[in-house]
Amino acid sequence: MTSASKIQGRLLYAQSGGVTAVINATAAGVIEAARAKGVPVYAARNGILGALREELIDTGKESKAAIAALRHTPGGAFGSCRYKLKSLDANRAEYERLIEVFRAHDIRWFLYNGGNDSADTALKISQLGKAMNYDIRCIGVPKTVDNDLAVTDCCPGFGSVAKYTAVSTLEASLDVASMADTSTKVFILEVMGRHAGWIAAAAGLAGEGADAPPHIILFPERAFDETAFLAKVKATVERVGWCTVVASEGLRNAEGQFLAEAGTRDAFGHSQLGGVAPVLASLVKERLGYKYHWALPDYLQRSARHLASKTDADQAYAVGQAAVDYALAGMNAVMPVIVRSSDMPYRWKIEPAPLHKIANREKKMPSGFLTRDGFGITAAARRYLAPLIQGEAHPPHGRDGLPKYGRLKNASVTKKLPTFEH
Amino acid sequence: MTSASKIQGRLLYAQSGGVTAVINATAAGVIEAARAKGVPVYAARNGILGALREELIDTGKESKAAIAALRHTPGGAFGSCRYKLKSLDANRAEYERLIEVFRAHDIRWFLYNGGNDSADTALKISQLGKAMNYDIRCIGVPKTVDNDLAVTDCCPGFGSVAKYTAVSTLEASLDVASMADTSTKVFILEVMGRHAGWIAAAAGLAGEGADAPPHIILFPERAFDETAFLAKVKATVERVGWCTVVASEGLRNAEGQFLAEAGTRDAFGHSQLGGVAPVLASLVKERLGYKYHWALPDYLQRSARHLASKTDADQAYAVGQAAVDYALAGMNAVMPVIVRSSDMPYRWKIEPAPLHKIANREKKMPSGFLTRDGFGITAAARRYLAPLIQGEAHPPHGRDGLPKYGRLKNASVTKKLPTFEH
Repeated sequence: MTSASKIQGRLLYAQSGGVTAVINATAAGVIEAARAKGVPVYAARNGILGALREELIDTGKESKAAIAALRHTPGGAFGSCRYKLKSLDANRAEYERLIEVFRAHDIRWFLYNGGNDSADTALKISQLGKAMNYDIRCIGVPKTVDNDLAVTDCCPGFGSVAKYTAVSTLEASLDVASMADTSTKVFILEVMGRHAGWIAAAAGLAGEGADAPPHIILFPERAFDETAFLAKVKATVERVGWCTVVASEGLRNAEGQFLAEAGTRDAFGHSQLGGVAPVLASLVKERLGYKYHWALPDYLQRSARHLASKTDADQAYAVGQAAVDYALAGMNAVMPVIVRSSDMPYRWKIEPAPLHKIANREKKMPSGFLTRDGFGITAAARRYLAPLIQGEAHPPHGRDGLPKYGRLKNASVTKKLPTFEH
Repeated sequence: MTSASKIQGRLLYAQSGGVTAVINATAAGVIEAARAKGVPVYAARNGILGALREELIDTGKESKAAIAALRHTPGGAFGSCRYKLKSLDANRAEYERLIEVFRAHDIRWFLYNGGNDSADTALKISQLGKAMNYDIRCIGVPKTVDNDLAVTDCCPGFGSVAKYTAVSTLEASLDVASMADTSTKVFILEVMGRHAGWIAAAAGLAGEGADAPPHIILFPERAFDETAFLAKVKATVERVGWCTVVASEGLRNAEGQFLAEAGTRDAFGHSQLGGVAPVLASLVKERLGYKYHWALPDYLQRSARHLASKTDADQAYAVGQAAVDYALAGMNAVMPVIVRSSDMPYRWKIEPAPLHKIANREKKMPSGFLTRDGFGITAAARRYLAPLIQGEAHPPHGRDGLPKYGRLKNASVTKKLPTFEH
């Protein structure tokens, strides 16, 4: 290891992929830790694209208060992007450009805050740096509401969307319960989760027992069984008086088609994207005749910083700090991951894990987390999920009744290189 | 007026229509005020239907703590219903049954917590009581997220959905802003408001100025102008980089059709109800080619007690208390209404208003609240709306990370009358 004191240079931080309620808490952890060590931090504007385009932001122009406010501000403060670098073979020029930009701005540490794609990119850059004889330390920093990163026990961003989903399920169910005698009998909440049902599973924390909502959870891990679903809706309405259903957007039928795409067509005859909830609602209405309502919170669920989990916000900050510690300690191609040492009381710590164990892998929900009928979560799932939504992390509110979310200046760094066509 | 000390008997409280995040705060105000005066309170199970069916709840069986918890619990604790009594001429038997039930249980004060239909019902019962020589005092207690009651400056329930909408607009917009370079450019949030755009207007509190979200608000008060809408979306995306649209569910085209019904059909060819947002999203995609996302929070918006406005929660409690005061003071056929004496600092008080001025009327949004192009709110609207979302009223949270919402025993009162067929 190289001691930090011998290295001069700057640290570059970039946000990647879908943002979360707490990705900026990670940014705060990074910047505050680096400042404490006297290391200047640049951020890439709009993620890795900013690095390719040499669109860099000097976070040194931001006040201490502005950086502190990131800790409670949702969205991605420097911009993020959906852009996956091709393989080294397919587009070596992009990787070489990154090294060029790093060299031009004396970037010696690169922290890439994202999911498994980003871990892969960080890994490749670290390898190319070596090949190109440029001394760069690459650290992946975990972030994803999907909770699908390997090695880490959970992913910063997930705990808050989990809390949003559990609380929303509870609240909407209280509403439905009080109106069911003459109004809505079936309420369907559609949540994110294209490939894995982690978010849907979290809705299960809203209640426990057969009569408590949610009565039915539909996971992408299980093919949709229309007959079993309708039978359970009917039995629940007859027993409880109403029924709350939580459905993953990624729910598929037995043929593997997304239900959201199989169901509806707009007036032009085009498939109506986005919405498994209305498809299920139509089915309930057609077959059972129950009055329904459905909700699709979409981005509201992953940006709801006002309802963040304190556990999640703390972990998001901690991985940012740890990433700086690892980088300055000379580590390379690692990610700070969350290690759980106890469920109850919940105890966790941060440790480094090699990126090659995380890059491009996907953590599935254990099959032991789903009940036998596939419509609920087990005690094991509750043990895992419960700590992740614990604690409140209310943002400060202004006198206007709105959360006081921060806003950065995002001052551009002067470019030094010719434009790069990507 | 009859002095309260001379009247023996019970007070009956019933919840009516769609519930809100704070209707139970009104229930707490009612029960705590009545208990302080030594007056026993029954509640009707599932609103006025409970009164017709003689399904009454003895709130005296609830602990002090359980009643206090109502102050921060969403939904309708005793059940509500959508059931409008017919006119006295059309179904006099229903009104007579109510008086019979009141007489059987010595109900001397009836507090009906709802909107303008409920005010009408309370008014008619008070008139029939007189005609049937039964001494009953009827008080309407205001509640509706629609904010459309006459006389009162605002309606308990509205401030909290307004706050939810403004905060959600702000948070989702931060998300969209950070991803717009490569992902979603147009985000559409659909909010409640079948006939009036009060909730949509509240989204305008999320930001001020042409570049701040929401960039476009679509009100049911204005016929949808497709050309102007698309032009403004395009101009906003070109100038700001992205565009947030907030649309009332009640948006109509120039022919008066709901856009939500005009647009899409499901796989069976049936009109796909509920969803102006996907119709607008398809339009944006078809005509402008922008990537979109849309959200439809539905019941989440009116049950989000975790994000209630303190102003709203306080007013909801205060109208409950005042209703008891008025009833015990012998007033009849009145409603406690909120009177605003100052915008800034916001000052309000509760006063009695005659039900006949409120029953069956609908308060429209003043035309001076909409900007000339019909896509935004004016300074006058801001002055009116801003105080209503002020203050936080966080519910207590458990160690499990969920709000600690109350749950009543709702012990039934023994029936004394034969069954009534309604």
